Amino acid sequence: MTSDNSNNSADEQPKIKRQLIQPRTLKGFRDYLPESMIPRERLIDIARKVYRSYGFSPIDTPALEYLEILTGKGGAETDRQLYRFEDHGGRNVGMRFDLTVPLARFVAQHINTLGTPFKRYHIAPVWRGENTQRGRYREFMQCDFDTIGTLSVAADIETGLVINDLFEEIGFDRFTVHVNNRQVLTGLLEQIGVAEQATAILRSLDKLTKIGPERTANEMLKTAGITAEQAAQVLAITTLAGSNQEILENLKPLVAQSELGTAGIDRLQQILDGLAAGGVPPERIKLDVSIARGLDYYTGVIFETFLDDLPDIGSVCSGGRYDNLAELYTKQQLPGIGASLGLDRLLAAMDELEMIDKVKTPADILLVYFEKDQLNKYLEIAADLRQAGWAVEVYPDAKKLGKQLKYADVRGFQYALIAGGDELQRDVCQIKNLQTGESVEYPLSSVAADMK
Amino acid sequence: MTSDNSNNSADEQPKIKRQLIQPRTLKGFRDYLPESMIPRERLIDIARKVYRSYGFSPIDTPALEYLEILTGKGGAETDRQLYRFEDHGGRNVGMRFDLTVPLARFVAQHINTLGTPFKRYHIAPVWRGENTQRGRYREFMQCDFDTIGTLSVAADIETGLVINDLFEEIGFDRFTVHVNNRQVLTGLLEQIGVAEQATAILRSLDKLTKIGPERTANEMLKTAGITAEQAAQVLAITTLAGSNQEILENLKPLVAQSELGTAGIDRLQQILDGLAAGGVPPERIKLDVSIARGLDYYTGVIFETFLDDLPDIGSVCSGGRYDNLAELYTKQQLPGIGASLGLDRLLAAMDELEMIDKVKTPADILLVYFEKDQLNKYLEIAADLRQAGWAVEVYPDAKKLGKQLKYADVRGFQYALIAGGDELQRDVCQIKNLQTGESVEYPLSSVAADMK
Repeated sequence: MTSDNSNNSADEQPKIKRQLIQPRTLKGFRDYLPESMIPRERLIDIARKVYRSYGFSPIDTPALEYLEILTGKGGAETDRQLYRFEDHGGRNVGMRFDLTVPLARFVAQHINTLGTPFKRYHIAPVWRGENTQRGRYREFMQCDFDTIGTLSVAADIETGLVINDLFEEIGFDRFTVHVNNRQVLTGLLEQIGVAEQATAILRSLDKLTKIGPERTANEMLKTAGITAEQAAQVLAITTLAGSNQEILENLKPLVAQSELGTAGIDRLQQILDGLAAGGVPPERIKLDVSIARGLDYYTGVIFETFLDDLPDIGSVCSGGRYDNLAELYTKQQLPGIGASLGLDRLLAAMDELEMIDKVKTPADILLVYFEKDQLNKYLEIAADLRQAGWAVEVYPDAKKLGKQLKYADVRGFQYALIAGGDELQRDVCQIKNLQTGESVEYPLSSVAADMK
Repeated sequence: MTSDNSNNSADEQPKIKRQLIQPRTLKGFRDYLPESMIPRERLIDIARKVYRSYGFSPIDTPALEYLEILTGKGGAETDRQLYRFEDHGGRNVGMRFDLTVPLARFVAQHINTLGTPFKRYHIAPVWRGENTQRGRYREFMQCDFDTIGTLSVAADIETGLVINDLFEEIGFDRFTVHVNNRQVLTGLLEQIGVAEQATAILRSLDKLTKIGPERTANEMLKTAGITAEQAAQVLAITTLAGSNQEILENLKPLVAQSELGTAGIDRLQQILDGLAAGGVPPERIKLDVSIARGLDYYTGVIFETFLDDLPDIGSVCSGGRYDNLAELYTKQQLPGIGASLGLDRLLAAMDELEMIDKVKTPADILLVYFEKDQLNKYLEIAADLRQAGWAVEVYPDAKKLGKQLKYADVRGFQYALIAGGDELQRDVCQIKNLQTGESVEYPLSSVAADMK
């Protein structure tokens, strides 16, 4: 609560009795109550911690950008979704709709100061005036990390390592990181002689899981104008089975006549080896040459991450390598690789998997305000507990014990500290475990240390 | 980097060669590079940790609100500063200009779910299309915490305790929390018989430090129409000196005939005692009845926080008690108390006081990529170090040692880990302290544990 709006002083307001304004949020926007914000902050904390452990640095950029920055590459849909307006200075501005365009602008603007390799993470809201009927929101958080300015396979491998660490830290054991390399598909298309029709073919391929191989092949015939045999050859690679190593071996002859394709296979081999060296259990990595996602954008390795217990919700962390991040804003060629954690999707999944504690407080202990005239004593006890690392809420009023305990229960506190007149006289307190109902007496002088 | 904007596919773009778009930010908006974002994130982390340790829960609200929500109480200036526009659905919307109005709307909307006391913190950007000439920015972070739904003095005291913990945790020793109670001033005005002219008197009083007592008194005569003697009586309280306890004693007779004033003195006494009980060194608390800030808004205790080494920058954490948070949106009376950490002002102050490390990386160790064919070994070493809690960046290319060490130096890494072919054969590595230049050899098997 600030008084910065103190210019809204009483005498500037009409004295008439106002109608109440209906308190409501805009369609497609959400309030986060503590119960949903606490797990959200936990995930963001973990993402930051993992990103930092690899040397990614935080950055931030403005929510508003010059419209021309945002629409630079924009297709019709981006344009339609953009929150845009004219500011007080008559500038055309827009609210960022992702963190990639701002990153490109940022890097183009500051690259001489930043130097390369430049590794950044950016966790911030973005806005899209989308159709909300599909359960989409118009404001959501993105959690991106990228390494700019290096073609090294080390950065490719690291992206997979970060994804693995992220999900392990969040508490997942059963997840699979799908890996592909755009170069392999390109190599295959070259070898079949249909490289020119790549865009249309890949667009059809992207629908494979939805519409099945037959309809995908038919669509390729129609939109890409390739033969049934060529379509069958493209689709054949999606049916390769076996271990990653077996798939890789089977892919080799399919791209052997393409330099790019062969390089792509080598790269995938290095990535698989590097991920194993970095400690990722091999069964978590799945070579998946059917990933067609972002193929019009990514130029090298591509990652998608699926939860084994909820694969149908789609990828919860995706990314890949690109050749030239900031071509709209600078002549400098800036290749890079990065990925983005799908925070909202992941939280929804965790909720479904019952991985989220339903607590409404970040504190451990509710300190019951029992004796009205002992507030200062309670404040002293709370300070000691905080000093020892406990988060402690002191109930603000000396209401009935039952009411305070009910409050502690509803909020999800783990413990209640109860010290009535008798306990205070004996310099002890009761610690009530609110899950088990059990109470244990501790000396006040050592409760902070002993509770651990 | 995401491919969510994959609808911007290649064939939707004109094939003509585009002009480069100038990469730039809007006037009044800033990019945060790692060097400024790292200390920023540190402060936000500390604020969250301290708020949580008292049981404040995180919430978030949308950046965009219905315009009527935002302008509900708005004076002319708020309205002028507001970023407002019509959205795709023809709604009049605006970007939030503080976190107080959204809190009021939020609480009115959800109070039945939330229950009271409701303690929340909210750390988020706000936007104001202000004149930027005074060094103000149009986008800035607010870090607010509030307790809603209780009149208890415990909540007043706690606000001071949070402020004390905040600054201690950030690393300050020399700061002073000024405390006032609006009721005391009101009591004084009642006793002098000028309560009706309170608004004008307090507005003049607010200028005291800027224009001095004489001009303040003259202004009171003119704008409030009070006598010179009455003005002198008002100003007399601002000259009270001595210890907090002495000031309190001297105030008592000045408000003795006012019930509100006497209650205000009692309250201040309880707050001083409570802050001491909660562990705040008494010399950090200053009873300051001259604080007139936010007096048209606050109705009880008021806090302001000054850095002893830079008092002129003004208060870096301010707040107070209010009677009715959400009167525009609900008939339910919701008193509360809260304060706001002035993040930008504080960071500027810390920079001036040289309290900020100039690092461009959150990682501790740069792992030098020395032997081109040993990448997997380096990834293994890095994984071990991360497991032990170190943040490690692996340089992505096997460039010359000097170039990699220079990179480590410029970014501000503390250590470089160097392991050439000889070291790897002996299963050891060199840890170079980049501040001292000293190198120490460690066995690879135990470097992660031994470095501590």
